[in-house]
Amino acid sequence: MISLVERAACIRELVSQLGESKVRTTPEDLAAYETSVRHGSGLAAFAVLPGSTDEVSATLRCCLRHGITVIAQGANTGLVGAASPDSIGTHAILSLEKMSTLIEIDRINRSVLTSAGVRLSALNAKLAEHELVFPIDLGADPSIGGMIATNTGGARFIRYGDVRRSVLGLEVVLADEKGTVLNMTGGLRKNNAGVDLKQLFIGTGGAFGVITRAEIEVQTLARHVATALVVPNSEDVVTELLVGAERVFGETLTSFEGMSRNAMECVFRHMPRARNPFLPDPVPAYALLIETTSTGESEDGGAELQQRLNAFLERSLKSGTITNAVFDHADQLWTIRHSISEALQQEGRVIGLDIGLRRGDVSKFHTDARALVEKHFPWLKIFDFGHCGDGGDHFNLVWPKDGAPDFDNARASEAREALYSLVVEKYRGSFSAEHGIGPLNQIYYKKFTADSNKAFAGRIAQMFNPNDLLGRFSLN
Amino acid sequence: MISLVERAACIRELVSQLGESKVRTTPEDLAAYETSVRHGSGLAAFAVLPGSTDEVSATLRCCLRHGITVIAQGANTGLVGAASPDSIGTHAILSLEKMSTLIEIDRINRSVLTSAGVRLSALNAKLAEHELVFPIDLGADPSIGGMIATNTGGARFIRYGDVRRSVLGLEVVLADEKGTVLNMTGGLRKNNAGVDLKQLFIGTGGAFGVITRAEIEVQTLARHVATALVVPNSEDVVTELLVGAERVFGETLTSFEGMSRNAMECVFRHMPRARNPFLPDPVPAYALLIETTSTGESEDGGAELQQRLNAFLERSLKSGTITNAVFDHADQLWTIRHSISEALQQEGRVIGLDIGLRRGDVSKFHTDARALVEKHFPWLKIFDFGHCGDGGDHFNLVWPKDGAPDFDNARASEAREALYSLVVEKYRGSFSAEHGIGPLNQIYYKKFTADSNKAFAGRIAQMFNPNDLLGRFSLN
Repeated sequence: MISLVERAACIRELVSQLGESKVRTTPEDLAAYETSVRHGSGLAAFAVLPGSTDEVSATLRCCLRHGITVIAQGANTGLVGAASPDSIGTHAILSLEKMSTLIEIDRINRSVLTSAGVRLSALNAKLAEHELVFPIDLGADPSIGGMIATNTGGARFIRYGDVRRSVLGLEVVLADEKGTVLNMTGGLRKNNAGVDLKQLFIGTGGAFGVITRAEIEVQTLARHVATALVVPNSEDVVTELLVGAERVFGETLTSFEGMSRNAMECVFRHMPRARNPFLPDPVPAYALLIETTSTGESEDGGAELQQRLNAFLERSLKSGTITNAVFDHADQLWTIRHSISEALQQEGRVIGLDIGLRRGDVSKFHTDARALVEKHFPWLKIFDFGHCGDGGDHFNLVWPKDGAPDFDNARASEAREALYSLVVEKYRGSFSAEHGIGPLNQIYYKKFTADSNKAFAGRIAQMFNPNDLLGRFSLN
Repeated sequence: MISLVERAACIRELVSQLGESKVRTTPEDLAAYETSVRHGSGLAAFAVLPGSTDEVSATLRCCLRHGITVIAQGANTGLVGAASPDSIGTHAILSLEKMSTLIEIDRINRSVLTSAGVRLSALNAKLAEHELVFPIDLGADPSIGGMIATNTGGARFIRYGDVRRSVLGLEVVLADEKGTVLNMTGGLRKNNAGVDLKQLFIGTGGAFGVITRAEIEVQTLARHVATALVVPNSEDVVTELLVGAERVFGETLTSFEGMSRNAMECVFRHMPRARNPFLPDPVPAYALLIETTSTGESEDGGAELQQRLNAFLERSLKSGTITNAVFDHADQLWTIRHSISEALQQEGRVIGLDIGLRRGDVSKFHTDARALVEKHFPWLKIFDFGHCGDGGDHFNLVWPKDGAPDFDNARASEAREALYSLVVEKYRGSFSAEHGIGPLNQIYYKKFTADSNKAFAGRIAQMFNPNDLLGRFSLN
């Protein structure tokens, strides 16, 4: 709830405390904060652009006094609506965009201290000067704070894990009366001297506090890379190939990504930047993007890495588990993978799913899910792709523009819910693997989370965010 | 507090619910649960050995009704007293020893479901049949539940991280009226569909609940290993060598451990199983145990791994950063490293420190710490060793049997506290890096934890353990 009088008073105070340049109020100025880069839009009551932790604290205190809900926003590239205001203008946007310059590299500790608004691309450009990298690979260019609030996974999870794994420290501002700054930093890898409170701010979509700074463990930049797009003889052999690849490549395996024919064809149809490497053959039913990298020095310039990949593929070809493999320019193969989400938008209304499963359950789930769609929603087209290496599965559906009933939001939600039920109830999987929590999956949280777990989450929310001032996701 | 009447009533009820064989009450039967394998001892009111999650829940409910504090105990190998009863017999021990058979390996998911009482050695024996391993390396043989409650680190942290990194799921029993079983399992690598509650039970010493089951990501067993014990020209070049080693060995670097001359000499003096590999030369001032491993197949049988290590060492010798290196049998080199703690006990009273620092701060801290000891506690002997690769530092002191004032507990505590103050206040380090929290470091928690962080930890404790029934560490 927000009244025009409170809104005006809050803006006045913020202008006097932070200066006019850090408070945005006109529709033109607000537009940039209202529409997500990738999903959803709304109307903002106003936007604040604090330039320091103290200013974040002052902003939260001011909004609390006036009872105005605050949505923290980084690069606004999320997929669950967590950084978007609602459609009626009751939310203030707290953008971290002015807190985007601190990048303090500790070469010996192999870690970096950044402000929350720093973009992944900016961080990696700076790290590259020291042959270092924050190796979370995804299609977007999020802010570090947003990545932490989402606990982003991505396409190199099998080697580098999620964002949580790399977070050494956090500074967070709470939306309590004092605008408390919780300092959970120190840059330590080993620290078990109490409760590791920072874990609670990772993956909780900004519901507990506003992340202002982060300390992150970074990795040595890959020196050699070997990549192939591999055609398994059927989806049934994918896990066998995965287990085999882990044996053969060991610690050098960085990606094991799956793409269905529909997903690949859609990319070739709509994205001129992507090249079909299978031509003149038809696009296969399924393909695996396998990447191995080594970060160490090797005298052979990485030849051994490539040879090992080739030998694995030749053996698999001989045994019949794969029927082909292409070694085009690796960047072109990755372009296919990273273009799928955007390409799907051209096909119709996308019902995107971000599912987490045990690795062995993915193909079983696909069989069940295809049957479910075929039976109840036969007009929906399936464009699945996913991270076979970690069980993350984007079983995406498209409601086509042509040859289908008119789009019906309720029916689309039914399809989504039926698939989530299958995931959670039959496979004990997750309805949000790496996109985190936000208003777009709020109802599934309520439906699929065990009561006891929900009750504890609610009490923790009450503890850190006692006035329910932050974000659009209710943990109760 | 405990009365004999309540104690007797509680025992009667437990016997009737769990059977006589699962409740121990005589001094002879209790002895095994009263003395820690590595540190401390006490007196138990009684011991309960539940055989299932339901029996753990029944035990907690029964103890709650009678107001008897419960200490969960795995293999009892901890170093901070978290699994030991107090000295006056007010605590009941809940041993997980009967819950030690479930080891369900999911080969495709590369994960395992275990009961909390399973020993690391038993788990790894079973995993080895599938060429898998839970690669946490330490001197003791703890239970899986204890490792999670401690968030154990160890000597291969640089590659495999702490226990937290590998925990995919937990089942925990709370000490509330219902003995609530919190199910946080599913075996998923990617799951961000709410608050990741299981993080709160990792590293909190059993203060929030009793861990009964765990799902753990496991790794492919190392196929090739190259090891050397390296002599740096001084401690000052250690971090330079570390950064260089990470560049050269990349993802194959698994250990980078440091040992001081005192620590090594102490081992050679007291541990007949350890062989001095430097003979006939004197033991150097400092040595680094460097290990690289590869888990993948390589056609050369691991020769490249060894060659790369040799080349690195030859270059370092030529540039003068190292003065020698020995390649004895790797297991003999590791024996030196893993024998230090035990050997120190022979020298006198050990003041063990488990410190976490940024990697670049370790040698600066050593300089300061040596000056401090020299100035205020000149009779104490320093036997430092540590995990240079992750900043974990065991700056251990010994109060010698001879040539020193008589042992004085208060003075020993002063030395400990002075060093912790240096660690925390000057270096923002941790007074408990990988040994976790327990009664032995309770006072340092109170002294060195920020008030706001302590307040939140206390409220979380109040939430999960509302009757203050669990453990000996107060988070308030």
